[in-house]
Amino acid sequence: MRILVVNVNTTDSMTAAIGASAREVAAPGTEIIELTPDLGADSCEGNFESYLAAVAVMDKVMRYEGPYDAVIQAGYGEHGREGLQELLDVPVVDITDAAASTAQFLGHKYSVVTTLDRTVPLIEDRLKLSGLLDRCASVRASGLGVLELEEDPDRAVAAIVEQSRIAVEQDKAEVIVLGCGGMAELEERVREATGVPIVDGVRAAVTVAESLVRLGLTTSKVRTYAPPRPKRVTGWPLSHSKA
Amino acid sequence: MRILVVNVNTTDSMTAAIGASAREVAAPGTEIIELTPDLGADSCEGNFESYLAAVAVMDKVMRYEGPYDAVIQAGYGEHGREGLQELLDVPVVDITDAAASTAQFLGHKYSVVTTLDRTVPLIEDRLKLSGLLDRCASVRASGLGVLELEEDPDRAVAAIVEQSRIAVEQDKAEVIVLGCGGMAELEERVREATGVPIVDGVRAAVTVAESLVRLGLTTSKVRTYAPPRPKRVTGWPLSHSKA
Amino acid sequence: MRILVVNVNTTDSMTAAIGASAREVAAPGTEIIELTPDLGADSCEGNFESYLAAVAVMDKVMRYEGPYDAVIQAGYGEHGREGLQELLDVPVVDITDAAASTAQFLGHKYSVVTTLDRTVPLIEDRLKLSGLLDRCASVRASGLGVLELEEDPDRAVAAIVEQSRIAVEQDKAEVIVLGCGGMAELEERVREATGVPIVDGVRAAVTVAESLVRLGLTTSKVRTYAPPRPKRVTGWPLSHSKA
Amino acid sequence: MRILVVNVNTTDSMTAAIGASAREVAAPGTEIIELTPDLGADSCEGNFESYLAAVAVMDKVMRYEGPYDAVIQAGYGEHGREGLQELLDVPVVDITDAAASTAQFLGHKYSVVTTLDRTVPLIEDRLKLSGLLDRCASVRASGLGVLELEEDPDRAVAAIVEQSRIAVEQDKAEVIVLGCGGMAELEERVREATGVPIVDGVRAAVTVAESLVRLGLTTSKVRTYAPPRPKRVTGWPLSHSKA
Amino acid sequence: MRILVVNVNTTDSMTAAIGASAREVAAPGTEIIELTPDLGADSCEGNFESYLAAVAVMDKVMRYEGPYDAVIQAGYGEHGREGLQELLDVPVVDITDAAASTAQFLGHKYSVVTTLDRTVPLIEDRLKLSGLLDRCASVRASGLGVLELEEDPDRAVAAIVEQSRIAVEQDKAEVIVLGCGGMAELEERVREATGVPIVDGVRAAVTVAESLVRLGLTTSKVRTYAPPRPKRVTGWPLSHSKA
Amino acid sequence: MRILVVNVNTTDSMTAAIGASAREVAAPGTEIIELTPDLGADSCEGNFESYLAAVAVMDKVMRYEGPYDAVIQAGYGEHGREGLQELLDVPVVDITDAAASTAQFLGHKYSVVTTLDRTVPLIEDRLKLSGLLDRCASVRASGLGVLELEEDPDRAVAAIVEQSRIAVEQDKAEVIVLGCGGMAELEERVREATGVPIVDGVRAAVTVAESLVRLGLTTSKVRTYAPPRPKRVTGWPLSHSKA
Repeated sequence: MRILVVNVNTTDSMTAAIGASAREVAAPGTEIIELTPDLGADSCEGNFESYLAAVAVMDKVMRYEGPYDAVIQAGYGEHGREGLQELLDVPVVDITDAAASTAQFLGHKYSVVTTLDRTVPLIEDRLKLSGLLDRCASVRASGLGVLELEEDPDRAVAAIVEQSRIAVEQDKAEVIVLGCGGMAELEERVREATGVPIVDGVRAAVTVAESLVRLGLTTSKVRTYAPPRPKRVTGWPLSHSKA
Repeated sequence: MRILVVNVNTTDSMTAAIGASAREVAAPGTEIIELTPDLGADSCEGNFESYLAAVAVMDKVMRYEGPYDAVIQAGYGEHGREGLQELLDVPVVDITDAAASTAQFLGHKYSVVTTLDRTVPLIEDRLKLSGLLDRCASVRASGLGVLELEEDPDRAVAAIVEQSRIAVEQDKAEVIVLGCGGMAELEERVREATGVPIVDGVRAAVTVAESLVRLGLTTSKVRTYAPPRPKRVTGWPLSHSKA
Repeated sequence: MRILVVNVNTTDSMTAAIGASAREVAAPGTEIIELTPDLGADSCEGNFESYLAAVAVMDKVMRYEGPYDAVIQAGYGEHGREGLQELLDVPVVDITDAAASTAQFLGHKYSVVTTLDRTVPLIEDRLKLSGLLDRCASVRASGLGVLELEEDPDRAVAAIVEQSRIAVEQDKAEVIVLGCGGMAELEERVREATGVPIVDGVRAAVTVAESLVRLGLTTSKVRTYAPPRPKRVTGWPLSHSKA
Repeated sequence: MRILVVNVNTTDSMTAAIGASAREVAAPGTEIIELTPDLGADSCEGNFESYLAAVAVMDKVMRYEGPYDAVIQAGYGEHGREGLQELLDVPVVDITDAAASTAQFLGHKYSVVTTLDRTVPLIEDRLKLSGLLDRCASVRASGLGVLELEEDPDRAVAAIVEQSRIAVEQDKAEVIVLGCGGMAELEERVREATGVPIVDGVRAAVTVAESLVRLGLTTSKVRTYAPPRPKRVTGWPLSHSKA
Repeated sequence: MRILVVNVNTTDSMTAAIGASAREVAAPGTEIIELTPDLGADSCEGNFESYLAAVAVMDKVMRYEGPYDAVIQAGYGEHGREGLQELLDVPVVDITDAAASTAQFLGHKYSVVTTLDRTVPLIEDRLKLSGLLDRCASVRASGLGVLELEEDPDRAVAAIVEQSRIAVEQDKAEVIVLGCGGMAELEERVREATGVPIVDGVRAAVTVAESLVRLGLTTSKVRTYAPPRPKRVTGWPLSHSKA
Repeated sequence: MRILVVNVNTTDSMTAAIGASAREVAAPGTEIIELTPDLGADSCEGNFESYLAAVAVMDKVMRYEGPYDAVIQAGYGEHGREGLQELLDVPVVDITDAAASTAQFLGHKYSVVTTLDRTVPLIEDRLKLSGLLDRCASVRASGLGVLELEEDPDRAVAAIVEQSRIAVEQDKAEVIVLGCGGMAELEERVREATGVPIVDGVRAAVTVAESLVRLGLTTSKVRTYAPPRPKRVTGWPLSHSKA
């Protein structure tokens, strides 16, 4: 099967890291195709950037011409999944949902550790809408931005490890979801520091997408995710309408 | 004071109706400036169109050059308000929130009557995130699309009146919020049929925006709605990047 | 238009302060008429006093003979609004609700800072019934009583500023609602200390009441707030029955 | 032990019926003293009357001079319990809470069947504040007022039986709480019609009050129900201040 | 009347202590019959042991041949009550529910203080299903196991007193429920240290069971707690099938 | 990898059907080992039987001597998963959770269609504890028992199809979860009748278990699911202690 894994920002190195991470867990016979949007911010750290990512991801996927069996939206806590679900018949898996669903099989409560404090409400809101907030002990921020994770990995890891430890000890989390990605090293170090299972969204999403395809399940089209009604849409697709 | 009232779809006649409705309740000295996005669908009836509207509204507002004191996003149940709140210092009022907040002052429970069944979950989700779902007795759909309201007003009104009546009698709503707009006649006929107060989102939003400005209150910038961090944003503003 | 602003305690100096505060934000053409109940405690700091205030306010308003367009109940977190809504046709606005509704337009979460710890549960309960608790980050108490605010303003302000700062930093509030009133100075100093918008209930309520009147909206009479059924009511109005 | 059972309305025949009902279940050695307030409506069917009852009950109890070990507020869904709890050291039991607590021991969900539709929200709100709404399947109204129960018992019973039956069959209630009182016959006929346990608030409250006294438990005084602070209270007690 | 009080673990000394505690509050004429299961762990401190206790208690009660009027399941936060309710017609009272219901009559919020941290989620889950979590301020663990309470009472009491104090001061509990039992001394010392009412589950359950019997109320049999359908059950009763 | 799939009742034909269903979706290289408990009812339709199943499943798994990588508890809405999670290091997947988690990726709301009305509260309670009830539109019962599904498949299918249709049309479910199993035919016919995706718990659980194993994730052992403390456990394992 073929799975599109779409980054939500325009930073190619992050797309590559996401793709590599996805391939590590993909089953034999699963082809991972990573995509970078043509529009949007080089990192998503707030609602403006996240809304822009929502349409940039839809734009990218709609213009992708090859066949595929499922789509993974690889941004933690971002807007847009519901739009893709309307536009496509194949399953759409957001890594936020995949990680939380996976974590819930492993412990009584889970915590999310993410980058900036300002994105905590976005993540909480997305989990609330997905019905996955009830067993979330906390969403904690390391205080370092998305790109700083790449620039100073040691400091980033230390900050994330520290928040993960607090989540387990004070918030009573029994599983940690990493609300940020692209570093193989991170997962291992947080696990060592806390002794709890660590869930990475991209990896979890690959197995969820594969499962849905294997079960022959696709997005329900009866109501919320029915295809858009035929109508005039000015300037769409976005990047197509340029030039 | 000057208030921007931004339509979420690209249908100019609806923008004009929204502007006219806003002017009817605006205080003396309040100037209403209605705007139509340059991008997006000619009506918003689902997540794809709503996400597109979110960025189209931000795009339009960011390119507006004159001074203004507040912005009203005039689409019922649409995405995007949080993004505008990051980008602007002045208050941003979504008509979904304004209508629900207003309705809550008038009765124990309120219901929303909107157009298509498929948009009901969007509206419920937006009200849930805004913390305004608790006193919502129901969100009901008339089954007629946004543009059908304009094409066959009589049938549209009859369908909306019928759902409003059911909301009051069965769901125990004491106030009706109209989750659609542009028809002065509608408000009056629903009131007559149900005997309860009818709240129109655009009109409610005008008074909320005026109130916030008069109280000297602006969007909090400490966390969720802090300005976007400086970074590279490709293809933004959207319509500017065309050609 | 003419708005009755009714204090919930019997302290005239507080009534005067409330009236002055209301006048500062009232629109041109709005007349503010402040009233002091003839019964009750000289400050409301608990359920006994609050229930007494509920009937004292109703008693005062029912015996007021002039015309008016709306009533504001100017006690934070007090009982009684629903009773007034039954007795009157014009809109009734509680400052607790008005402040929370207003705060929700300005930030993702708000906190209330009030006087005594013992009143925190009352306020939480009133916000819960009003469907406005979901986005309340916390209700915090300064530890100083209502009248101590008047007696030692400096100490009172310092205590309230301190709790507001904790609300923003620890509870993640993005807006502060002042659950106590009568000091113009307070609002300014809390804003300086926290950097977030400060909402005062009386001022917010004035704009809400004006908005409702301007929109032609009145309390729904179909069910919860229908007029009391005709029956024998002994000793009512309360103060009338004295002597 | 001695238990005060306080009616919330001024109708003596109802007080007598309540007292008789209480005596039927009181343990040997328990003395029931029924009281009628000196103020208020001859039946409580809304917020105005309920708030008035709240203070009338407090007024009556505070002027009662004999010793007693517990107080029962015998009005279904009425305001005021929290005020009494501040004023007294002995346990205060509201029949609304006692009935729901008792019902929860008997089935998975319970429904309340009461008189008028307009009182349904009051009851729901009181149960919500008492943390007893979660297992409430529904609050249903017979459509007949409090005094009509006395005037035309047959019709009243038929209407209550009908709503109880619907509660069990449609709302999936497994226990019925009677949110109205004074008729021995009622309990038996609803039980026959539905086959489920029927809980009467006054009877349940007598056993709860006796239990609390027997366990040596009294109202917590550390915070919410601490005694009112010493202060000037004008016109209190209410009936004392008359003449 | 005759009440079976069933321990959930196999430690006879704890059964004896539970029985003694029950007798202290039982009304004249109430006979307490304490039972120890023939199967299971010598203390219940987790789900495995608790599920085993669920069936061990059912097993013990079903094989008890004498007459009885009610059953108390005397384990804090354990599984199994719903099963007993299906098997029996007489009321079944879990001490977890009895204690929380009782505590809610005494203060605005209550906290549970139990033994091990690992049992906190069990207790929270049981309270959630019983609809009694809403007014629970916290469930706190002393860190000492069930049997350590017996082995080193002084240390156990000190740890429980400390957590109770924190519950009152930080979590704003106004009542403490002891989620562990068997020590008369404990109740007194926690009360002295905190100044709030202390509720012991076994004692509370005795008065609840007596109340239900006195009111003539039994478990509803219409749906959730209907008797098991006739069918083949292998190996039941458990202890009967041995040998 | 090797997955144990444990039936919750003692009916061998159902175990065989579950095993066959699991094998249909198992990945190449996954070995399915189906187990039937040695104790318990021949179908689980209530709490007594479900609690018995909980320990019977633990008993069976603990006595299984071969190696395995994950365990699936194949009973819809049954007790016991948390106990197994304490006893084992490998992932434990309950089909109730697996089905709901899977359904949530496919539509806005899902409904469960099960057998008897009496099991509806059990299923709702289990979903509530698993944090998966928020997006559950309804749990509906066909009115036919577990074994009747085998005896009269046509009637059973018709009843389940009817409830599924109502769930989609009235309750607004967009996905149907089958809360009963063993019939390949059922899934297809419900899909045809409703037009929505149908999720079978056993099949979903196989892919979830495989995913967890492939991701290298195991149950968190820090708190709720830590291994039972060493202690005396009388009569355990259950079947071992027989004879």
